[in-house]
Amino acid sequence: MTTHRLLTLLTDFGHRDVYVAVMKGVIAQIAPMLPVIDLTHEIPPQNIAAARFNLMTAYPYFPIGTVHVAVVDPGVGSSRRAIALQLQGGYLVGPDNGLLSGVLSQHPLVAAVELTNSDYWHTAAPSPTFHGRDIFAVVGAHLATGISLGQLGQAIDPASLIQLSLSAFTRVEDKISGYIQAIDRFGNLITNIPGREVEGKSWSVLVNPDTVNPKTISGQQTYTDQNSGDLIALVGSHGWVEIAVNGGNAQSRLQLSENNPIHVVINRATNDQD
Amino acid sequence: MTTHRLLTLLTDFGHRDVYVAVMKGVIAQIAPMLPVIDLTHEIPPQNIAAARFNLMTAYPYFPIGTVHVAVVDPGVGSSRRAIALQLQGGYLVGPDNGLLSGVLSQHPLVAAVELTNSDYWHTAAPSPTFHGRDIFAVVGAHLATGISLGQLGQAIDPASLIQLSLSAFTRVEDKISGYIQAIDRFGNLITNIPGREVEGKSWSVLVNPDTVNPKTISGQQTYTDQNSGDLIALVGSHGWVEIAVNGGNAQSRLQLSENNPIHVVINRATNDQD
Amino acid sequence: MTTHRLLTLLTDFGHRDVYVAVMKGVIAQIAPMLPVIDLTHEIPPQNIAAARFNLMTAYPYFPIGTVHVAVVDPGVGSSRRAIALQLQGGYLVGPDNGLLSGVLSQHPLVAAVELTNSDYWHTAAPSPTFHGRDIFAVVGAHLATGISLGQLGQAIDPASLIQLSLSAFTRVEDKISGYIQAIDRFGNLITNIPGREVEGKSWSVLVNPDTVNPKTISGQQTYTDQNSGDLIALVGSHGWVEIAVNGGNAQSRLQLSENNPIHVVINRATNDQD
Repeated sequence: MTTHRLLTLLTDFGHRDVYVAVMKGVIAQIAPMLPVIDLTHEIPPQNIAAARFNLMTAYPYFPIGTVHVAVVDPGVGSSRRAIALQLQGGYLVGPDNGLLSGVLSQHPLVAAVELTNSDYWHTAAPSPTFHGRDIFAVVGAHLATGISLGQLGQAIDPASLIQLSLSAFTRVEDKISGYIQAIDRFGNLITNIPGREVEGKSWSVLVNPDTVNPKTISGQQTYTDQNSGDLIALVGSHGWVEIAVNGGNAQSRLQLSENNPIHVVINRATNDQD
Repeated sequence: MTTHRLLTLLTDFGHRDVYVAVMKGVIAQIAPMLPVIDLTHEIPPQNIAAARFNLMTAYPYFPIGTVHVAVVDPGVGSSRRAIALQLQGGYLVGPDNGLLSGVLSQHPLVAAVELTNSDYWHTAAPSPTFHGRDIFAVVGAHLATGISLGQLGQAIDPASLIQLSLSAFTRVEDKISGYIQAIDRFGNLITNIPGREVEGKSWSVLVNPDTVNPKTISGQQTYTDQNSGDLIALVGSHGWVEIAVNGGNAQSRLQLSENNPIHVVINRATNDQD
Repeated sequence: MTTHRLLTLLTDFGHRDVYVAVMKGVIAQIAPMLPVIDLTHEIPPQNIAAARFNLMTAYPYFPIGTVHVAVVDPGVGSSRRAIALQLQGGYLVGPDNGLLSGVLSQHPLVAAVELTNSDYWHTAAPSPTFHGRDIFAVVGAHLATGISLGQLGQAIDPASLIQLSLSAFTRVEDKISGYIQAIDRFGNLITNIPGREVEGKSWSVLVNPDTVNPKTISGQQTYTDQNSGDLIALVGSHGWVEIAVNGGNAQSRLQLSENNPIHVVINRATNDQD
């Protein structure tokens, strides 16, 4: 095939140790000129939900055919399956623990296999604690060089793939109930409410919606619509409703964390006047 | 043209999120084999001065024709301009907020444009909060593949470019007055006084020069001229007068921060004896 | 030659400054398309022992002919030698301060030179504080493009190379005495006792072996043999006996640090029953 393939890596291995480098070494043994791009290696240790969010966020921006190897794997060495998935836009390789399920929720699956063919592993006797090196990186490199999914192992039933159960947002008339699904380096609070719910509307966010005095933040177009230091709500670059502070850190300001409930209210009166 | 081009990235996006990876994804969609080198992504959030210093420091070491994409952009989504600059040695792409002005202070400008041609953007409707992905990275990739500056937008008056106003050092006879412009990971205090002012001279640094008891540190050639743990002053690898501790951390020792005033004194008597 | 070469970098320069990027810039001036892989840049400043461990750990996973440039160099600018080594599997470039001696302890040396030929440096007058940029990176790039070791400088006596003296583990009958040689991001405590000493045996680790109440941890095959939160001992992916907490951090739990003594006890009675 002529589609050019890249490989990406996402792990919770950090930058202090050489775990990531070792994965790149075994990849280079198979495909020395293959471009490898780091998604992030600073997923909090064993935090599958954060890994799922970040992989889902990055996936749409890569070329067709890119192979994404993702390893946040608290169950390494247990009976959890090692899998590879072919989607319409690319490939995913990693443990079957819900990490890949965010991308799957947004992009159609073509085929799924369990990685049972050790011919495509670094060694037929992989370390019980480092499948990133001995299975996932190597399988990813083989996929990127054109090996087909079917050569890697047994086909599995897509319905059997582990889903990370995140509750969806709910909408009742003009009130949308969601929660904070991620917080970035800048302290921006990223909700699970898609921007399309508020596009072209006048809207507000309610923080601590279930308390006596919820805080209201009005929806804006961009960071600089408000004075520096003001709290704002906007549709962030990921496509989700976000809470931010212009020139500051919303997480520090509001002392909220992941899973905190958030409401979005569509201001019907105002919108009706449009 | 036959000049080989690289692309570099400098941001304040950190390593925890996938913002940088997403920029690399959109670059790879245009130029999958283009080598991309990270300058740094650990600029303190929205610190334009630190970004300016680091870009200026790295620039001279890259091949002719390298495209540097730099995004520290507190004004994203406002009326600040997005620009690309052609210098004699390479290209700069980023917001017009002073970030690029350090390189400009040391290397002649050939041409400047505002990025107004959305044909070379990721999308004609860029996210108001992530021009790094939707404009700068993509424009940089196009430049690296040979698109000319003039295709990217309207020429602008170089005199209109935003300069980050850093006060220069001043010299009155044998006393040079400057300040700390950057502090590195090792706690080395990097002043804005060029090494050429002290080369071949006997010299000293005065710390806290405006206090009753300024501290004097004598100028040296290298870290190991002194005993481990001693404070030393020397011309650092960036070409600026630096204060360091051999085997230790000068910032912790002296409790100084960026913008602290520093004097260099040329020891005329000693030098006359040479 | 037809062997494909990569270059890796290991430093204590961190990710905040552009020191690493500058090394990549000068490498790109010599070999723009040469793949460069970061081993780690988060070695604690000037910690030669940690650098030695990480380089030794990563080395075996890279393709034959890879050039490893390692710069943790507290003696930069002093009389310590700059060296390049050819091993059967690859090349090492760095200061002669013990940093390279871990790899040397496990892989046969073919040739060693002192880097005295400034034709292969960035400049004949290198900065006294940044040989990483002015000597090591550039020499590494030349090696990766096929320059032979002999062109880089004078051959030196292998017996003269600085060894970092780490005490070896000792074994007396069924008791093996070692210590913690490294701690990774996950808080796993990596000893200097090779896994081959316990393979196929029933065994335990004694923590604080010289105290009145040493703690005993039984040896396991993988993280998930035990309940989450339990302390376990196992042979880690590096091939050394490790102490870990399933789903947690052994360093925090045990409050141990590098160089803490550790005993491994082979349970003869149990093994005899096998």
